[in-house]
Amino acid sequence: MRHFDKITIIGVGLIGGSIGLAAKRRGLAREVTGVFRRRSTMRNALKAGAVDRAVMDIGEGVKDADLIIISSPVSSIPKLAMMAAKSAKPGAIITDVGSTKAWIVGAMDRSLRSSRVRFVGSHPMAGSEKTGVTHARGDLLEGSACIVTRTPGTDRNAMVRVADFWKALGARVKILSPSEHDRAVSLVSHLPHIVAFSLASSVPDKALEYAAEGFRDTTRIASSDPELWADIFHTNRREIALSAKAFRDSYEGIIRAIASNDRRRTMKALVRAKRRRDSFMVKYGLRKR
Amino acid sequence: MRHFDKITIIGVGLIGGSIGLAAKRRGLAREVTGVFRRRSTMRNALKAGAVDRAVMDIGEGVKDADLIIISSPVSSIPKLAMMAAKSAKPGAIITDVGSTKAWIVGAMDRSLRSSRVRFVGSHPMAGSEKTGVTHARGDLLEGSACIVTRTPGTDRNAMVRVADFWKALGARVKILSPSEHDRAVSLVSHLPHIVAFSLASSVPDKALEYAAEGFRDTTRIASSDPELWADIFHTNRREIALSAKAFRDSYEGIIRAIASNDRRRTMKALVRAKRRRDSFMVKYGLRKR
Repeated sequence: MRHFDKITIIGVGLIGGSIGLAAKRRGLAREVTGVFRRRSTMRNALKAGAVDRAVMDIGEGVKDADLIIISSPVSSIPKLAMMAAKSAKPGAIITDVGSTKAWIVGAMDRSLRSSRVRFVGSHPMAGSEKTGVTHARGDLLEGSACIVTRTPGTDRNAMVRVADFWKALGARVKILSPSEHDRAVSLVSHLPHIVAFSLASSVPDKALEYAAEGFRDTTRIASSDPELWADIFHTNRREIALSAKAFRDSYEGIIRAIASNDRRRTMKALVRAKRRRDSFMVKYGLRKR
Repeated sequence: MRHFDKITIIGVGLIGGSIGLAAKRRGLAREVTGVFRRRSTMRNALKAGAVDRAVMDIGEGVKDADLIIISSPVSSIPKLAMMAAKSAKPGAIITDVGSTKAWIVGAMDRSLRSSRVRFVGSHPMAGSEKTGVTHARGDLLEGSACIVTRTPGTDRNAMVRVADFWKALGARVKILSPSEHDRAVSLVSHLPHIVAFSLASSVPDKALEYAAEGFRDTTRIASSDPELWADIFHTNRREIALSAKAFRDSYEGIIRAIASNDRRRTMKALVRAKRRRDSFMVKYGLRKR
């Protein structure tokens, strides 16, 4: 079932590469083009079969594309999307995979107000602490959530086509406003990353000899790319400040209960946390990925 | 290679059951006896092959034992160890698997000063968020760290025999003082648990729909047994207060850097965290478990 004749992916790393692999495998496009900054990535992407055609010039890469996917670090997305819009054909749809949405979608809605190119924000919520096209997997998006944004400036037809594309890759699509998106992901994704980075930093090297599975799993995402995550954190500052307070209140509550030897209060907090986490696993944790 | 003629395990759950399975499989004892509080656990332990003989009376269970292993929640260990010491034969060795050591070993050193039974504190650092003998595995301790404690009151011969027993189960044994142990585990184990419980609590149910692998792994150990962990936290209060401060400093540093849009400071903190976590994985994370 072909969704688009030509798809162009700008930035072919873990996510962009996985989208290319999946789109080709499922026959969603006649041709998938990748736009690269580095020759080494280009070679790896072609070897992995993530793209059919590889170019280094954005204008050349997007000029015939029906769908353009910007899959680069958050801070570069508006600029790359604008460059793509300049060379894209009328009616082309641009989407992105950025982990913050209000900052990106706001910039694009303002910039493309009178354009014949349509922009729709997306956030396929799949990933890994690993980066690069060599870790790309055709099934990365299967079973994961993908948020597509709707604003007063969003073209409905383009939004439906973008949503259908992610569904065809196996994602569970949800439509949210950019600010609803940023609130939700600040809690379920940005906050866990900040907590994992903080935890990894606070354990001195000489204690690590005794660390086991608990430490390993709790800090796994602290091995993520600092550049990518600094971008995400700094473009979602307001929501992160709110989520940070929610975590701080839980944490300080447990620490105070322990310090004052109030076992009943500790138990209450731990039971509540376990219930929340167990209910997550029952509802969402066991789904196919 | 038989290490003890008879071993008795008091409390046959995930850890006690895994020790029984491993000791039997490796022929480390002629007979493994389990002491139970509940008939259902007794049936499950016999069915799993974790013990050869099952009793409900401590006195009966320990009277011929050469090695007695107390594998129950931390707060019950000194009391059960004293009950075992009263019925044990002269020369018997008692050890435990408790996750805090100063509180337990201090109590036992005082209580058994003039006894002919010897106590040595142990902490096999393996486990799971899952509990109960039905999750026991004969290879649970393989490749994991096991701390054995030494104090002025510790019998050297008993300490070596206990250390050799854990080594024979596949653990990497380290000898530490109880306070060195409590400091190290407050950082690598207790703190990650507090952080995971806090994180699971601070994400509201309606946001969980968008949670993915990052949230799942960062909160895995928040599904642990609250009773067990309240015991551990409340018997290691002083060290936890110190570790809590180390985490708080890291966390508030990152949150402040984001709030003040100081991207350079955020990057510095994230790079430091990633380096620490990556070095843990290279040194310890990839070892056989």
